[in-house]
Amino acid sequence: MQDRYYDLVSERVRRNMERQSPSWGGAARPDAVPLNYGFPYPESYPLEDLIEACATALREDGSEALRYGGGPLAGEFDAMVADRCNERGLQVDDENIIVTNGSAQAITVVCDLLIDPDDVVLVEAPTYMGALREFENFCADVRGVDMDDDGILTEELERILADGVRPKFLYTMPNFHNPAGCTMSMQRRRRLLELAEEYNFLLVEDDAYGELRYDGEDLPALRALDETDRVFHLGSMSKILAPGFRLGWIIGPPSLMEQGDRLKVDGGTGPFVRAMIGAYLREIDLDERIIRIREGYRRRRDAALRALREYMPEGCSWSEPEGGYFLWLTLPESVDVTVLMEDIAEAGANPLAGNIFFPDDRGRNNLRLSFSYPDEAELERGIRAIARVTAGQME
Amino acid sequence: MQDRYYDLVSERVRRNMERQSPSWGGAARPDAVPLNYGFPYPESYPLEDLIEACATALREDGSEALRYGGGPLAGEFDAMVADRCNERGLQVDDENIIVTNGSAQAITVVCDLLIDPDDVVLVEAPTYMGALREFENFCADVRGVDMDDDGILTEELERILADGVRPKFLYTMPNFHNPAGCTMSMQRRRRLLELAEEYNFLLVEDDAYGELRYDGEDLPALRALDETDRVFHLGSMSKILAPGFRLGWIIGPPSLMEQGDRLKVDGGTGPFVRAMIGAYLREIDLDERIIRIREGYRRRRDAALRALREYMPEGCSWSEPEGGYFLWLTLPESVDVTVLMEDIAEAGANPLAGNIFFPDDRGRNNLRLSFSYPDEAELERGIRAIARVTAGQME
Repeated sequence: MQDRYYDLVSERVRRNMERQSPSWGGAARPDAVPLNYGFPYPESYPLEDLIEACATALREDGSEALRYGGGPLAGEFDAMVADRCNERGLQVDDENIIVTNGSAQAITVVCDLLIDPDDVVLVEAPTYMGALREFENFCADVRGVDMDDDGILTEELERILADGVRPKFLYTMPNFHNPAGCTMSMQRRRRLLELAEEYNFLLVEDDAYGELRYDGEDLPALRALDETDRVFHLGSMSKILAPGFRLGWIIGPPSLMEQGDRLKVDGGTGPFVRAMIGAYLREIDLDERIIRIREGYRRRRDAALRALREYMPEGCSWSEPEGGYFLWLTLPESVDVTVLMEDIAEAGANPLAGNIFFPDDRGRNNLRLSFSYPDEAELERGIRAIARVTAGQME
Repeated sequence: MQDRYYDLVSERVRRNMERQSPSWGGAARPDAVPLNYGFPYPESYPLEDLIEACATALREDGSEALRYGGGPLAGEFDAMVADRCNERGLQVDDENIIVTNGSAQAITVVCDLLIDPDDVVLVEAPTYMGALREFENFCADVRGVDMDDDGILTEELERILADGVRPKFLYTMPNFHNPAGCTMSMQRRRRLLELAEEYNFLLVEDDAYGELRYDGEDLPALRALDETDRVFHLGSMSKILAPGFRLGWIIGPPSLMEQGDRLKVDGGTGPFVRAMIGAYLREIDLDERIIRIREGYRRRRDAALRALREYMPEGCSWSEPEGGYFLWLTLPESVDVTVLMEDIAEAGANPLAGNIFFPDDRGRNNLRLSFSYPDEAELERGIRAIARVTAGQME
């Protein structure tokens, strides 16, 4: 694209203009079951408690709640986040955590800190499309490492590194992967840390779903296992409370966090929402809340898995996630979902096409299904629609 | 500074590590009059109306208020912003405005769009320290253009351009300049637009204070005079409502705004706060509110000017702003405020040292006084303290 201001834009934008990334939206229809959104289910939002928390924040902190940077209650929020992270072994102190505008801003801070154009960034293949877009915006050379049910294939990673690829960092979701649904085994976690140390790259651990386990035992975070301070750990209130507050955090090596703080010129992270959620968290028991919402997610996951088993034709497979929001559906190689999205929407479901989760052209026989938002009847209806279209395609 | 991760950080960060920028904080003391903050005065915040707006947003939009991107009331907020901008002649349509996380994020979007390391960015000298820091973070070659009471010296600018300097953009505050307090004349506005067209650079018009005029007549915004679509216009709710919501906006050329939107990977600008402020703006008359708060600011400005006239020693001068938040104080050349900040704080005032507003080492005999936040008695007390220390220095 030749724009009239082409000569004035940055190299990154010139390169963006030349790249055609697949759209996330697909052929979504408003009457189809929304399997696309990674949203909490509507009944999980504590609306009345939040209304009260807003009143508390504005009456208690007054104008302090509304200034740049944040007042006392915003500070309480930050302290509660740090305490919770420490309870999970994430090695937080005053020097190594920044509360961010959602974990999206945490990803931006990492990119700002580390990426020059053409630097190699490794990701799991597939990976979260938002991170992928940001790495592309920074003109990183993004390369995928394959996964299985135990997470990233550390042997494949080692091969890539031994071949001479030198990444700035590897972006990973060890728990309840978005979109793959899998969880990294303990052995792979340890091996990944060893490789990062041996080949001198950093790890970016996106743990947005880490507290949403429905079966099995929690595994320690990479950052909790990290003895050499080379893991950035990204957390978020989006999935345990609500995305709309845009509150996340990043923990990392202190010298890099100091530079990250300098790069983050934004008037302070959500001064008012931090005060409001600070007031909310003071009043409620967040652990108890998480136990309660996990029930709602577990029921949804189970309903989705039942529907998949009941309706999907032979030759299809899917992840069986122990937590998180997502199911990853693999259709026969012969099926290309990118040309089926309209039919699927027409039939009554809005999943996301698998190719938007890959840095290359793969994923055309995959779908991501978010089970977090619809109710159980809707999940059944949506998955039945996908099964019908898939079966028709396989005849 | 040689960090253990030095080899992994981006060029921008490596250059940042080597640069020592002056700290903004100075020697601020909690018991001294806060002339440093560009905050609205505490009584101006409509706390009870905001509490009600939060309840309306959460009851009316329900979970939609808390999702990524934003629900119906967030959309209403966006539409109200666009309408207001059009009432001010800012040429807004569906394709050329983005609501941002404060105008700080708008500045970041501009930098992302336009700056490669060592690109020239022109600023007024002095200029807003937050913008200066962001331009430095992007490793721009920042150059200052001098000003007088009528704003930027377009003749000096023309000389710079004729000398062969080729800026990507010029960042300007035509109204009630931060920190200089001056307002750009109509003639200079027109000349600036001509020069931008002739030398093919963009203009970034930061109008955070544009609606806060206390005397005289409003002048049209650069973007309202712009016939060639080369002005980015930055607006904000921070000064007419509250900084703590982090709501601003940017209007600009559609093709660049499309790219800006792609670069802005953040889950959507404050979905909840947009809904809440959407509900607030629907209930109140914002124009009436602005008229009312202008009164509070006018009284403060007048008190500050009275105190300056009464207490400052001979040889000092200051701006007489027609609006905005700031007074710019010029002390005799022999005075170096950077070594006086402790004494001034000790004497009872927290102004900001002038040097943080310059891209070079100037401003050492200047102070920025924010009159927006303290009450009239405090303003008198603070300015008296500054006068006392200054006079002592001049003996």
